[in-house]
Amino acid sequence: MSPSDFFYRNREIAGFSNPSRATYTAVRELLENSLDAAESLEVPPNIFLRISEVAGQTESETKFYIMRVEDNGTGVPADHIPSAFGQIFYGSKYELKQARGTFGLGGTMAVLYGQITTHEPVKIESSTGGDIHEFIMNIDIQNNRANIFKHNIRQNPTGWRGTSIEIQMDGDYSRIMHRLIEYLKQTAMVVPYADITYIDPKGRLYKYERGTDTLPPLPQPVRPHPHGIDVEMVKRLISTDKKSRNMKSFMMENFQGVGAITAEKFLKSADINLKSKPKTLSSEEMVRIVRATKDYEGFKRPIASCLSPIGVELFETGISKELGISEDDYLKVVTRKPSTYLGYPFIVEAAVAAGNTIRKSHGPGIHIYRFANRIPLLFDEGSGVIWKAAHKNINWKTYSVEKDTSIVIAVHVCSTKIPYKSVGKEFMADQPNVEKEVTNAIREAARGVRSYISKRTRIQREKRRLNIFNNYLPVIAQFATRLSEKEEMPDITPLLTAVSTVIPEEKSTLAEVPQIVEESSE
Amino acid sequence: MSPSDFFYRNREIAGFSNPSRATYTAVRELLENSLDAAESLEVPPNIFLRISEVAGQTESETKFYIMRVEDNGTGVPADHIPSAFGQIFYGSKYELKQARGTFGLGGTMAVLYGQITTHEPVKIESSTGGDIHEFIMNIDIQNNRANIFKHNIRQNPTGWRGTSIEIQMDGDYSRIMHRLIEYLKQTAMVVPYADITYIDPKGRLYKYERGTDTLPPLPQPVRPHPHGIDVEMVKRLISTDKKSRNMKSFMMENFQGVGAITAEKFLKSADINLKSKPKTLSSEEMVRIVRATKDYEGFKRPIASCLSPIGVELFETGISKELGISEDDYLKVVTRKPSTYLGYPFIVEAAVAAGNTIRKSHGPGIHIYRFANRIPLLFDEGSGVIWKAAHKNINWKTYSVEKDTSIVIAVHVCSTKIPYKSVGKEFMADQPNVEKEVTNAIREAARGVRSYISKRTRIQREKRRLNIFNNYLPVIAQFATRLSEKEEMPDITPLLTAVSTVIPEEKSTLAEVPQIVEESSE
Repeated sequence: MSPSDFFYRNREIAGFSNPSRATYTAVRELLENSLDAAESLEVPPNIFLRISEVAGQTESETKFYIMRVEDNGTGVPADHIPSAFGQIFYGSKYELKQARGTFGLGGTMAVLYGQITTHEPVKIESSTGGDIHEFIMNIDIQNNRANIFKHNIRQNPTGWRGTSIEIQMDGDYSRIMHRLIEYLKQTAMVVPYADITYIDPKGRLYKYERGTDTLPPLPQPVRPHPHGIDVEMVKRLISTDKKSRNMKSFMMENFQGVGAITAEKFLKSADINLKSKPKTLSSEEMVRIVRATKDYEGFKRPIASCLSPIGVELFETGISKELGISEDDYLKVVTRKPSTYLGYPFIVEAAVAAGNTIRKSHGPGIHIYRFANRIPLLFDEGSGVIWKAAHKNINWKTYSVEKDTSIVIAVHVCSTKIPYKSVGKEFMADQPNVEKEVTNAIREAARGVRSYISKRTRIQREKRRLNIFNNYLPVIAQFATRLSEKEEMPDITPLLTAVSTVIPEEKSTLAEVPQIVEESSE
Repeated sequence: MSPSDFFYRNREIAGFSNPSRATYTAVRELLENSLDAAESLEVPPNIFLRISEVAGQTESETKFYIMRVEDNGTGVPADHIPSAFGQIFYGSKYELKQARGTFGLGGTMAVLYGQITTHEPVKIESSTGGDIHEFIMNIDIQNNRANIFKHNIRQNPTGWRGTSIEIQMDGDYSRIMHRLIEYLKQTAMVVPYADITYIDPKGRLYKYERGTDTLPPLPQPVRPHPHGIDVEMVKRLISTDKKSRNMKSFMMENFQGVGAITAEKFLKSADINLKSKPKTLSSEEMVRIVRATKDYEGFKRPIASCLSPIGVELFETGISKELGISEDDYLKVVTRKPSTYLGYPFIVEAAVAAGNTIRKSHGPGIHIYRFANRIPLLFDEGSGVIWKAAHKNINWKTYSVEKDTSIVIAVHVCSTKIPYKSVGKEFMADQPNVEKEVTNAIREAARGVRSYISKRTRIQREKRRLNIFNNYLPVIAQFATRLSEKEEMPDITPLLTAVSTVIPEEKSTLAEVPQIVEESSE
């Protein structure tokens, strides 16, 4: 059985369980490939997505759709295209850095699903700057390789760089429409430097314009951290290492943050001779090295340059842009320091938003947005670690968040290895350290909520109080004027100002004075 | 990248996320292989499982363990052993029938995990009745094939048939002990015809004895149902079909439940010429056939002989045995009729138990046991369809089940395709038809709970009442004897008997009499 065959038979574990879900997953996988391709070129992504119905179909629950995704990314070299889109598990380059596509499955799975439902080939066009290569192909599932029907080479007068892919598939758009739009909106929140244009099957245009041209720094590939290794990895490193003459230099060359002194101390703790040649290591010695890494505490923390958090500024831009946050709302974004679980580095970022805008758009309650390596997670919220952190670990009363408070929590976890619990990338397992960091990130971002809410409550109370003054003082003044048989009413403004300034905090209440005028003029 | 390499890098999606979980998953996969092997031979399984610590280890959070699982199953032919345990995705025989090991991954993943953590080879012994073949081997991960270190052939004087496998792996037993024992207990509930012996690392013996020698009937492989096909499958069937001369016979030969008339009617509805040769079918025609199957309503329901439900009697035996159900408890098991989702047949079985035994062992609340194709599901209960059915879809008040009632619900779903949401086989997706059947099965099994509870309440009330008579009548009799200055106390037994038997149904109204007696005696 080939890997293609395995995923053909078990497509639900990759997120292609039924026509509506498959529609969603296909868009998602293609879009994420496109974002990756543009980011790795360090250009702000321009993504064009269109889903259209195949013409002349009768009414039925599912329909054949053509999905087209086009980007301005790196492009795929012509000789790689057949494998990149026609072979499951292609792309074996194993770099230790943050990336969206963890499993190397997504694009090919979408092609596979299209093929098994419509039997139509996929059309791929790509240019790395020179000619445009067009492939019409499908997958030979039993042999896990591409069948190429056509390969055209065209000139590229406009100098387009990027990839476009067109897949025909059996889908169910109406059932998944809302999720898909939500997915695009959330992508725009977390990738605020991307321009995404979407034309849906009814011809409706959805446009997510970039809020900034700044991209977060590219993640840099790093050597493995000793805490994350296993025996197989040591074996592989030994077999590929041509330089190291002894175990000391082997440790220094192949792992991050291991200097001469650490290498010596560590190897002593593992009872390995510093001068042994790596190639002569016995299997028992390899095991000893791996076991010793778990107990040795002198290693530095994992390097975080392989990670690319969104950063406070970009995350704020994205959230403000997509949720329409105004200055009167509460929005606080935090990026935590790097941490690790099972030897993998990760960074948690959290945003908390509250205020009128949130109340109007989301209603009361705690609303969660979840992101992992800049991918929105939309399904199975209740099973994931972020839900657990937000709902179980935090006592919201201490933040003055009551049942009828409206609050948005957005959490982004980035890592070289997101602890997904399924190939469908739907939710993260509750690794203890990840859970702790997520909880702390939310707490940190929520720290100002209490004072924001109490300030808002105070302002509202003050508004009400001034309103009363406003309503009655003019009446009293009028009455007093008449009573004292004066003709001119005294100016009550100083009085009002005095009343409203006694309390130092609520300068904003003075903004209400015009209202007073308005009301008293009635 | 080879499939072994993929799962080496992404082992968490197969359930090997950390040492404790890996311990659990490895046991589970090996045990399930053994049960399958014995069942397919139609003998009651005898499974021997032992986990022992590798000697001479220092104290550490994780330890090296040796896992040994031995069975009395079919045995693996010598020439298949290297691939069966040393190659991911081996075993391409794709039969449409119920089976535990859906992904063909389990055993090899356990070997792989042992290897990457301890670098020790695996030891396999197997006999199909003749000589015993012993293999010492590991996996060449990059090439997805076995490295054989030793292959010994021994005589088999006792005529043993079966397989034993010994894997050394880095594990964490203490953290997973309770789950593992729970897993074995639940396996015994759902496989009551198996004898399972387990010796844990502390040398403690756990024994699950069979409650019956009867096995459920073996599932029979069937041809695919037209509702479950896709274009790729049609293509494959056409290429392997050597007999059918035209499309009509092709339909009759390759699909279940399609006779001459159905074949004709269906092909007409799909606008396919009955006399076309299958090999000449265009890709557009294949697509038309697949689409037409979705709309055509004249097919028979899928055949259920490919399924093997436990059956009311065996399920009752298993539950009674493992939960210690007595005659005073409520236990009702139902096996629903076959149903289908997305063209796959499935059967739901449900048991509901209540009473003193459950209250003592489980405490108040609704306790759920979940099974899929005779595998207990222990993790992520809250995400699965059974939890949803039991907690969201059923109004327990109508069954007199209150918050402090103790009730056990056991649900078994069997299908040619369990809708698992992950390779780790932890929980089932809420396919609408599955959800409906699960809900109805629980409702049906729970139907008697209300009258059981009210009867029990009545009996208890009656007991209390009689207790009071018992306590006070002798006192009253004594007092009356003294008052009337008689010497001999009258025999109150007839009176007591009369009180407890007089009223057939409405004991509840008279039940208040003793209270009166009680009060008037003050």
